[in-house]
Amino acid sequence: MDEFVALANRMADTAGKIIQKYYRQPFDVDRKSDNSPVTIADSEVETALREIIAKKRPGDGVFGEEFGHQESETGFTWVIDPIDGTKSFMIGRPTFGTLIALCEGDVPKIGIIDQPILKERWVGVEGKKTKMNGKPVQTRQCKDFDDARIGSTTPMMFDKLEDYDRAFHIFERGTSNMVWGGDCYMYGLIASGHMDVAFEQNLSPYDFAALVPVIKGAGGHISDWRGDELTLNSVGKVIACGDPDLWPILERMILKSPY
Amino acid sequence: MDEFVALANRMADTAGKIIQKYYRQPFDVDRKSDNSPVTIADSEVETALREIIAKKRPGDGVFGEEFGHQESETGFTWVIDPIDGTKSFMIGRPTFGTLIALCEGDVPKIGIIDQPILKERWVGVEGKKTKMNGKPVQTRQCKDFDDARIGSTTPMMFDKLEDYDRAFHIFERGTSNMVWGGDCYMYGLIASGHMDVAFEQNLSPYDFAALVPVIKGAGGHISDWRGDELTLNSVGKVIACGDPDLWPILERMILKSPY
Repeated sequence: MDEFVALANRMADTAGKIIQKYYRQPFDVDRKSDNSPVTIADSEVETALREIIAKKRPGDGVFGEEFGHQESETGFTWVIDPIDGTKSFMIGRPTFGTLIALCEGDVPKIGIIDQPILKERWVGVEGKKTKMNGKPVQTRQCKDFDDARIGSTTPMMFDKLEDYDRAFHIFERGTSNMVWGGDCYMYGLIASGHMDVAFEQNLSPYDFAALVPVIKGAGGHISDWRGDELTLNSVGKVIACGDPDLWPILERMILKSPY
Repeated sequence: MDEFVALANRMADTAGKIIQKYYRQPFDVDRKSDNSPVTIADSEVETALREIIAKKRPGDGVFGEEFGHQESETGFTWVIDPIDGTKSFMIGRPTFGTLIALCEGDVPKIGIIDQPILKERWVGVEGKKTKMNGKPVQTRQCKDFDDARIGSTTPMMFDKLEDYDRAFHIFERGTSNMVWGGDCYMYGLIASGHMDVAFEQNLSPYDFAALVPVIKGAGGHISDWRGDELTLNSVGKVIACGDPDLWPILERMILKSPY
């Protein structure tokens, strides 16, 4: 597993160098989307990471946001989101990240959340303590929903009105501690014990696979909204909480809500 | 005016040093709110800045988030928000900021947005070019609403349903470029030409006074939702856009919406 982790770190290094080149570069807002800095950076990163995988682990599968799914011959699949939080990247806000996961079958075993501008990297490995920039991190205790600092990315990620209402009324009306604009960075903040809950919908496997080992290795709970383990086949309803004792409370709130 | 700007910069330096001490410090989430790091940092910063003003400009007024309004004997009033974006501060996300404005009468003449973790500071002075870390900045061109990158802090800042609907349907449904979780930092991003529009409600004078010289000095438009100049007497409905040619389009959208 150590060799896989070293390779994943090398991939994150490569991604970061490319992203730093394009971050906050001026560009015409009416430029075609296939020619914007974020689109160029996205595809340049994924191309570079696929080249590394092809050279070092030629039989492994690759599932990336930009260039789709390449089947695995080894049982291992790399799951890549070059820039998670493209809107934050586009406005020059350093809360986006590169997500790199290694799955065995459809189960995430290694996950990296890398923020290349702030130079913050969370590395999660199944069965090991999650580290941020090489130092072990631990989620914090928070057993009371009223104390929880809760995050999501945008109300519009909840595609059905009842899902949105659920998030909105339970998670926003129910607490004054709701923060929006989260992206992958908030899962790092949960792992490091600064934040308590993330609640999202409509995530793709490349959006959440890397988060699983990071949150679990820091002592937190992460699952779909029913409490089932997240795999490459999950539908993308993701809930994470730093204190596993908070999960049963959240689960009851989700079940009780009109759905 | 140069002496005022030097004093404002010195105040921002002082604020930043205090905030850096408390940022991401671990604390019990069930600790009383009057004893949380953000509350301590907030009042420690405002106390320090009031001491500087009392020493250097004893007759000036002070209007701060924490300790209220001290009347001016000179015609000048310092308007201070020690930590704008307290929720971002609380979750360890470096997109909050210290806001310092100098008003003559009720009109903002100098504004500073300071992000002490990223060490980014925007300084706006009436009639001068806004600078970020000492370098002149300029908003970018964006004449088409569909191209605009739009930000707000939270949907819940819109207190009446029609206001919320207006923001939500026009500004979110109407564009795929909406970003949440903005706080004062997004006005800096507009000044630097990375973002196009900010749209907020329920801001207090200490939330928006500093933004006015920053946005105007970078070439942008900032006003209340009717297009009137923002002063200490404004009600806190704030709209800013980097390209002044976009404002008449936004104004028509606001007027046309059900209100």
